Amino acid sequence: MPNPTAAMLVIGDEILSGRTRDSNMHHLAQELTKVGIELKEVRVVSDDRAAIVGAVKALSAAYAQVFTSGGIGPTHDDITADCIAEAFGRTIDVRDDARALLAAHYARQGVEFNTARQRMARIPEGAALIENPVSVAPGFTLGNVHVMAGVPSVFTAMVASVLPTLTGGQPLLSQSLRIMRGEGEIAEKLTDLAQRYSNLSIGSYPFQRDGIYGANIVIRGTDGAEVDAAMAELSKLFPA
Amino acid sequence: MPNPTAAMLVIGDEILSGRTRDSNMHHLAQELTKVGIELKEVRVVSDDRAAIVGAVKALSAAYAQVFTSGGIGPTHDDITADCIAEAFGRTIDVRDDARALLAAHYARQGVEFNTARQRMARIPEGAALIENPVSVAPGFTLGNVHVMAGVPSVFTAMVASVLPTLTGGQPLLSQSLRIMRGEGEIAEKLTDLAQRYSNLSIGSYPFQRDGIYGANIVIRGTDGAEVDAAMAELSKLFPA
Repeated sequence: MPNPTAAMLVIGDEILSGRTRDSNMHHLAQELTKVGIELKEVRVVSDDRAAIVGAVKALSAAYAQVFTSGGIGPTHDDITADCIAEAFGRTIDVRDDARALLAAHYARQGVEFNTARQRMARIPEGAALIENPVSVAPGFTLGNVHVMAGVPSVFTAMVASVLPTLTGGQPLLSQSLRIMRGEGEIAEKLTDLAQRYSNLSIGSYPFQRDGIYGANIVIRGTDGAEVDAAMAELSKLFPA
Repeated sequence: MPNPTAAMLVIGDEILSGRTRDSNMHHLAQELTKVGIELKEVRVVSDDRAAIVGAVKALSAAYAQVFTSGGIGPTHDDITADCIAEAFGRTIDVRDDARALLAAHYARQGVEFNTARQRMARIPEGAALIENPVSVAPGFTLGNVHVMAGVPSVFTAMVASVLPTLTGGQPLLSQSLRIMRGEGEIAEKLTDLAQRYSNLSIGSYPFQRDGIYGANIVIRGTDGAEVDAAMAELSKLFPA
């Protein structure tokens, strides 16, 4: 059985303007690979209602799981929850359980639970809350879409809350070999190897540092013995 | 006149598996902002023909400019050039000018210009070459799609070759203020400010470090005087 597929939607002007370097994509990619869920596509869109709704609909229809980051805070530019509700044709309002979590949190801190903060308890009808052990304001899952915060420490914590609830697949195993020759020199033998091991994904990632050309060859697959066999052949083709 | 729009397509399994952290998106975002081209969307797809062709068609129809990174080397997993040709319904073959560039380069290096290396001279019919001062193998522009390498040093050099050929817009100006209060405390006044300056984009980017909550407020726009005025109001609302 093939592994379940997934997509990620990163929401935020700050990424597209170059102000902020996204790190959530890399984190999610690594975590999904560990549990055998295959990340097939990532999209980054701005804080724009039509763009978010359109991307949620497209990704939710095309992949088994969708993970979003960003736009669930208390400020005017946080419109993700409303967009998810719209994409699924659901109503959205402040929900009692989310409000209770936040009210208790702000009471402990001796801080006013004002209108802006209550915005973070707006949850689409029928969604399940995602726990946020870092700053309490919850994410949520609606259908196959998991809606999480953009702040990396909170995103990471929410991913850790969500992943154990999902059905994973066979972890993708990988081995890599660093070859200190230009890709053009190794390409023909590599093509032949890739054709013979068609169940595996064999990627070539070139680099050059201080004028020296090389490539990292990465062999990936779910069958460990097959990965081992292909790697043994590769090492023999290109001895160090 | 609104600024021209752009999208980016990052091609590569290594990003989606979490093996490699993409840096080209952040670089392109910063360079486009400088020249007043608005990056509206980024997609990351795997080395899969249907995924690449579909994304190129969608993005090329929706935005004024599209920039791709990855998949133009000599190995079997480098299929970007063929996918671009397919997306535009063009033929593709080794082209004399690209071949001549590469032949001269490998002759200088005393290295065989073999079949795999000749693959890098495959250019879709009607495309214009993009100069690669780092490692010679050219990128190309077809229609509104600019096809560049994934290796960051080469991508950066190709972006520098392409951008001066494009019509930019008004550079997006931005000013930011770091406010050492939680977003929930500043959200109401911020919403009011954003409504009064509807030509500007006012973003709030929360952080927490060592248990202290704060937010960077970024005001962006093309009219410097307006950005100044909004920033002056913001500073008065939230004195340090």
